Amino acid sequence: MAKLYFRYGAMNSGKTTALMQVAFNYEERGMHIVLLKPSSDTKGKDVVVSRLGIERKVDALLADNDDARKIVKSFCQEKDVSCVLVDEAQFLTTKQVEELLKVAILDDIPVICYGLRVDFRREGFPGSTRLLLLAHSIEELKTICRCGRKAIFNGRMVNGKFVFSGKQIAIEGEDKVTYESLCGQCYERELNKARQK
Amino acid sequence: MAKLYFRYGAMNSGKTTALMQVAFNYEERGMHIVLLKPSSDTKGKDVVVSRLGIERKVDALLADNDDARKIVKSFCQEKDVSCVLVDEAQFLTTKQVEELLKVAILDDIPVICYGLRVDFRREGFPGSTRLLLLAHSIEELKTICRCGRKAIFNGRMVNGKFVFSGKQIAIEGEDKVTYESLCGQCYERELNKARQK
Amino acid sequence: MAKLYFRYGAMNSGKTTALMQVAFNYEERGMHIVLLKPSSDTKGKDVVVSRLGIERKVDALLADNDDARKIVKSFCQEKDVSCVLVDEAQFLTTKQVEELLKVAILDDIPVICYGLRVDFRREGFPGSTRLLLLAHSIEELKTICRCGRKAIFNGRMVNGKFVFSGKQIAIEGEDKVTYESLCGQCYERELNKARQK
Amino acid sequence: MAKLYFRYGAMNSGKTTALMQVAFNYEERGMHIVLLKPSSDTKGKDVVVSRLGIERKVDALLADNDDARKIVKSFCQEKDVSCVLVDEAQFLTTKQVEELLKVAILDDIPVICYGLRVDFRREGFPGSTRLLLLAHSIEELKTICRCGRKAIFNGRMVNGKFVFSGKQIAIEGEDKVTYESLCGQCYERELNKARQK
Repeated sequence: MAKLYFRYGAMNSGKTTALMQVAFNYEERGMHIVLLKPSSDTKGKDVVVSRLGIERKVDALLADNDDARKIVKSFCQEKDVSCVLVDEAQFLTTKQVEELLKVAILDDIPVICYGLRVDFRREGFPGSTRLLLLAHSIEELKTICRCGRKAIFNGRMVNGKFVFSGKQIAIEGEDKVTYESLCGQCYERELNKARQK
Repeated sequence: MAKLYFRYGAMNSGKTTALMQVAFNYEERGMHIVLLKPSSDTKGKDVVVSRLGIERKVDALLADNDDARKIVKSFCQEKDVSCVLVDEAQFLTTKQVEELLKVAILDDIPVICYGLRVDFRREGFPGSTRLLLLAHSIEELKTICRCGRKAIFNGRMVNGKFVFSGKQIAIEGEDKVTYESLCGQCYERELNKARQK
Repeated sequence: MAKLYFRYGAMNSGKTTALMQVAFNYEERGMHIVLLKPSSDTKGKDVVVSRLGIERKVDALLADNDDARKIVKSFCQEKDVSCVLVDEAQFLTTKQVEELLKVAILDDIPVICYGLRVDFRREGFPGSTRLLLLAHSIEELKTICRCGRKAIFNGRMVNGKFVFSGKQIAIEGEDKVTYESLCGQCYERELNKARQK
Repeated sequence: MAKLYFRYGAMNSGKTTALMQVAFNYEERGMHIVLLKPSSDTKGKDVVVSRLGIERKVDALLADNDDARKIVKSFCQEKDVSCVLVDEAQFLTTKQVEELLKVAILDDIPVICYGLRVDFRREGFPGSTRLLLLAHSIEELKTICRCGRKAIFNGRMVNGKFVFSGKQIAIEGEDKVTYESLCGQCYERELNKARQK
């Protein structure tokens, strides 16, 4: 039976590369995938881009009020869909995660979602929170902190300085925002430094 | 460096047995553990009981307004604490999970939390939701559904019939409540049956 | 489809307790399991005993020339077998592991094997080596070293002193043999100490 | 403390892509990695090539009698090495795996090995067998079989027909050899077909 997978990782852990590899593996065998991306992520518009330099057009951008299962079904009328892949899955709505669970459980199509777990304040996103609660399988994609430990959190910098408040979504490169994935200790240290100012 | 672990599983997956084994392993080596349980779980009061028949007194019951890190620190004054174990961790408050993250990160004591992921409506508990977002390591304890598949959800029955609404916490055995762990498919089927009535 | 699982861990990681819990979970639902143990392990004879104090009779002791699949099939004639559990699986022969793979693949019965990975010299056992190569799923049961790190190796002591040569199988308690699970660093340190004498 | 990792997967599961991503993640942070490849793998000579089209020169080709730890140490004199990556790690010798374990344990440098688990006959390679027995962490990179199940074995074809005997190493593309990763069921079916001829 098909499953709903959530493969999460801090920023720059290689989530999009991993997604591309899965797409490649299916297609190399002549099978079809559907690639979805929530439209709240404006980075790259209707394209997913891996930092290794590979890119690919998405099959559909999901607006917040789109029914993810209906959209998958519309693709099933054109081709035999073997797998649904979702990039930036933290931006899915709670309802869309529940729809994707039905795609796995009732329509028997595996759904693999790649995304962040928490934002720069260590708060969950709607999509990631629901995926962590519902997915059949939760798998971590690892990356390293500056100190060599496993990074689990995402620090946001504005003008090169860590900030710990602000709106949940701010795209890297806009408004002088950059991100750095951090381990628990380095995050705490930066948080304390910022608070002492 | 110490980590915060969340080991989740559906009802009757053996979470308490696994916890007892970890406690045994530490103590067999002459190391000390601290065993905590949120007090919202009234089952067994200040005792944790595994279905295999082993039981053990908790070191502290956590009320909702208790500071989990302070409580751990108070035990550290009496003995050298090598590990903190938490049973029924889904009932921790959001704040207590954050305190336990600090026990791991700042006090360098591993914290292993055992608990359910979702309630009978497939909604998260405060503790499990926060643990899924913050834990360094998320591990599943598996059990089986009646159909032989992996159970990931928990069905609540009243008088032997599945119900899908009601208060989040209802202890097994009280008010004719029982639970059954279910796979995604069996849960959906029972949910549809209940809705058609 | 059913799978062959290998759940390995250092000595005293709780392998038998975990096995008992799985047996309990199946039987609580009215399903039947078959519990096998290679007879090379003479500890407890036809009984498996967990260090938490739970014990259970095995359904069959496997001699080296027994066909594991045939033995499972003989039980299938008496009852509907939902799962095969194997304790001390490191002592299976290479051929028996291949037979158990067929039980999973061709007879569609899940097979869960619990055992050590390496002996006190860090050499594989016949059963563990073949299981690591063939199992659909390899999962670690963790325990701690004296230093608090994860133990991955098994040290043998004779009269309380670590030894690094000798026959592969020596039962704890006989001939003044005891075991201690060790992390990589502590194992290397003891090995160097022993060599310098 | 650093660990020895073995990340195994069937052919075409994306092992080299995953390795490239890890290298990228370290280097993006200004850290240095060392990339090794056993020279028994003549594919691409001193280059590793991912099927997504990315390639990279290895830092050293390991001949069978090379001391892997010495080679890593020689790089440590030139730069601060944060991680050792090994492609096609199934071709390492038993001794080289033990040397790499020391790099992790005694020199405190993480070593991540990517490789196949078994050959086309389902026999272990020297490197993969030793890695499965010694690695601190064993992780699977998944890919799919033609039937949609998880592939765990590698089928070898000569002129498009599955063969089940022959020498262990035969490079894809030479002597009309191709490979296909297969699940347990499809492998058994092809094996039976070949035997019946």
